[in-house]
Amino acid sequence: MQNLEQKLQSAGNPVRMLRHSQIGAYVYPVVPPEFTNWRDEQRAWRETAVLFDQSHHMAELMIEGPDALKLLSHLGVNSFANFSVDKAKQFVPCSHSGHVIGDVILFHLAENQYLIVGRVPAINWVQFHGETGGYDVKLDRDDRSPARPMGKPVVRRRYRYQIQGPAAMNILEKLNGGPLPEVKFFNMDTIEIGGRIVRCLRHGMSGEPGLEVWGPYEEGEEVRATILEAGAEFGIVPVGARAYATNTLESGWIPSPLPAVYTGEEMKAFREWLPAEGYEGTGSIGGSFVSDDIEDYYLTPYEMGYGPFVKFDHDFIGREALEKIADKPHRRKVTFAWNADDVAKVFRSMMEPGIDNYKYIDLPLSNYASSNYDKVTKSGRTVGFSMFSGYSYNERSMLSLGTVDPDVQIGDVLTLVWGEEDGGTKKTTVEPHKQLEIRVKVSPVPYSRDARETYAESWRTKQAV
Amino acid sequence: MQNLEQKLQSAGNPVRMLRHSQIGAYVYPVVPPEFTNWRDEQRAWRETAVLFDQSHHMAELMIEGPDALKLLSHLGVNSFANFSVDKAKQFVPCSHSGHVIGDVILFHLAENQYLIVGRVPAINWVQFHGETGGYDVKLDRDDRSPARPMGKPVVRRRYRYQIQGPAAMNILEKLNGGPLPEVKFFNMDTIEIGGRIVRCLRHGMSGEPGLEVWGPYEEGEEVRATILEAGAEFGIVPVGARAYATNTLESGWIPSPLPAVYTGEEMKAFREWLPAEGYEGTGSIGGSFVSDDIEDYYLTPYEMGYGPFVKFDHDFIGREALEKIADKPHRRKVTFAWNADDVAKVFRSMMEPGIDNYKYIDLPLSNYASSNYDKVTKSGRTVGFSMFSGYSYNERSMLSLGTVDPDVQIGDVLTLVWGEEDGGTKKTTVEPHKQLEIRVKVSPVPYSRDARETYAESWRTKQAV
Repeated sequence: MQNLEQKLQSAGNPVRMLRHSQIGAYVYPVVPPEFTNWRDEQRAWRETAVLFDQSHHMAELMIEGPDALKLLSHLGVNSFANFSVDKAKQFVPCSHSGHVIGDVILFHLAENQYLIVGRVPAINWVQFHGETGGYDVKLDRDDRSPARPMGKPVVRRRYRYQIQGPAAMNILEKLNGGPLPEVKFFNMDTIEIGGRIVRCLRHGMSGEPGLEVWGPYEEGEEVRATILEAGAEFGIVPVGARAYATNTLESGWIPSPLPAVYTGEEMKAFREWLPAEGYEGTGSIGGSFVSDDIEDYYLTPYEMGYGPFVKFDHDFIGREALEKIADKPHRRKVTFAWNADDVAKVFRSMMEPGIDNYKYIDLPLSNYASSNYDKVTKSGRTVGFSMFSGYSYNERSMLSLGTVDPDVQIGDVLTLVWGEEDGGTKKTTVEPHKQLEIRVKVSPVPYSRDARETYAESWRTKQAV
Repeated sequence: MQNLEQKLQSAGNPVRMLRHSQIGAYVYPVVPPEFTNWRDEQRAWRETAVLFDQSHHMAELMIEGPDALKLLSHLGVNSFANFSVDKAKQFVPCSHSGHVIGDVILFHLAENQYLIVGRVPAINWVQFHGETGGYDVKLDRDDRSPARPMGKPVVRRRYRYQIQGPAAMNILEKLNGGPLPEVKFFNMDTIEIGGRIVRCLRHGMSGEPGLEVWGPYEEGEEVRATILEAGAEFGIVPVGARAYATNTLESGWIPSPLPAVYTGEEMKAFREWLPAEGYEGTGSIGGSFVSDDIEDYYLTPYEMGYGPFVKFDHDFIGREALEKIADKPHRRKVTFAWNADDVAKVFRSMMEPGIDNYKYIDLPLSNYASSNYDKVTKSGRTVGFSMFSGYSYNERSMLSLGTVDPDVQIGDVLTLVWGEEDGGTKKTTVEPHKQLEIRVKVSPVPYSRDARETYAESWRTKQAV
């Protein structure tokens, strides 16, 4: 089997293929599980400062050439008006049917030079069009690091760090030897770190102001050490693999929609281009939501909270489909706060021989697939999905991000079905278990009180870039 | 500061130094956290078969030369009568005061060639005497792999795997292309794996019969793949870093006594030889047992369950001290089964804002120091230590290993104080927390019903080598 299309033909139902995938957990690779402990690492992004090491868990694609913007504009729902050098944006490409393929951060590095960074599906989609669409572009891809390097060397093109938290600016000013350049949110500039001039992006992933910095991979270790040393007096801690992805539970970005690539005649050439054993062919769907129709797992940009990005000021794949639904009511993104007693039941069920346990809730990150779909119900009717779940020590609560029907209100208490049907699928991340109904309170995005009140410039709050 | 003695002089109280160590978690390095999921990985060693990758978490010291046995015999409490080539034993060196420094597996590989494998303190002690004691030996040390390689290559002298579980023998016979040689417990031979002749030791670490195999590190990946491929039909799974060390909760070996090296004039030369920043100088003590006197943390071989190893048929360091106490009553090794409701309280305390949480119980391995000492009390009086704790999915219980006063009976319900005093020490693994009294039931070693009934040849059951 050479390509995804062939694999899908042979598998029959793609939902069954992905729900029983043997790929294992979607991991945050290379970075150790914990540097201190995940509770204090979570606390640090709220109270002091953290260093996120984002050098390994994402793929990158450099796009250079006179047609680079044309390519991106053909694929992104976003507007490219005023997208000058040194600006960045959250780039959202959709399928012809108007469903999200993924999202990546798009950096306009220089005239005719763009870098996209993120999960593989959106990178694949851009690369496919760049290679096959007759564009005058040069592409250079740097793949996500291996999930389990087992002691083998891992080398990337670039290191990529974020310095976040209330003390981030103090640390950065100390490093820079003076005030930082006035950089607007999602704009780039340079700062000095240990005598090096380093490129930076104004960011705020954990719900607090901060910067993302990057440079040649071989300089990464030195830059990291310099940041940690300067930040020590401000309480900076590096964040390990266990805590890292949970920061999004507080800031409200959903990293893992199922890419809408498995169906549609217009997407067939892409499926034939994709390898059988890539992200799309081996990725997994986990959770209690089950439908035989894989399109039931697709999401529109509106349902993911990307509605404000959709601009019909240019032609792009999916435009026609999105224009038809733009003014209709949509599901919308929310945070679910899980009932404490119901969560405790799951742990209690692990502690006694002879009783069936519920699906283990791994702390602090509780996802067990590359795309997670737990059904959320109201009076037995499915009214949404819970798509990314974990624990926040800052909020002392299990939280998840998802999307709900328009008539669901903030404050509503719904039912999240935790675990999979019939004792669980064959995914390697799934031990035998039974399902449990967990009460969840529908809450705003971002959930974090701090983020809601102070993170004013963010696309995650205002949802406009 | 150059050596441990200097560091201790400068630190003042060694207990305070070690209880507030900043070294972080004692990790099982290089091997990924999970291959499938830790519940099923635990289940596999009870129900099918597992591959343990022991290539990284231990140090090794090769000892060659005419005086090799003389050196070992001078240090080990064990008898060396009949210790011929192709035998192995659990080698236990003690301090002059008769307290355990550590334990390692000692392989008699060839005439005048011995290999010791295990935690660093016992390796250091043997190396010190080998280098400074005037022995005619050649030493070759291979240190434990780095705890956080961060993508840098890790290369060891040897790979080291165990194949364990009820199906282990079927897999090994399939690999070997016929019946295995009749090898007694802790005896060595060779088997064939994928056309290679591989050295093996009859072992049974997880409470089931199995083999340990080793060879040149560069052949490890191929041998591993061959074993996993052959074992697939028997349900073999590789075990990740999270589950690995918990197998000892079922089989009953305590890996982590505090090495008895911090006091004693006769041990001073060793402390001056030890680096300031090695295991002994940076290792951590965790848990609720607190004494200003570090000797209160030392354990005799009798208290660790090594009494039957102690043979006064040769001269060795610590002999005099041990002879004096040999016939006295001793604390003895037991398993503690934790009360399910009390454990559930810990998790419930994590789930609500505004209440103080108890010390997080990480699953499945719950230790938060290199040496763990939780006090176990009866009517308020300390009657033992809990020294290694975690969760067994096979037993659906939190279990810990420890040592208790002679008058404590199997079946007694004691109190384990979980967490540290005054909100916790400054160790990086410790978040702010309060203590909780957890009821524990004193239980046999090994705890596992299967191990108790079928693991008849083992030193861990019969405690005689």
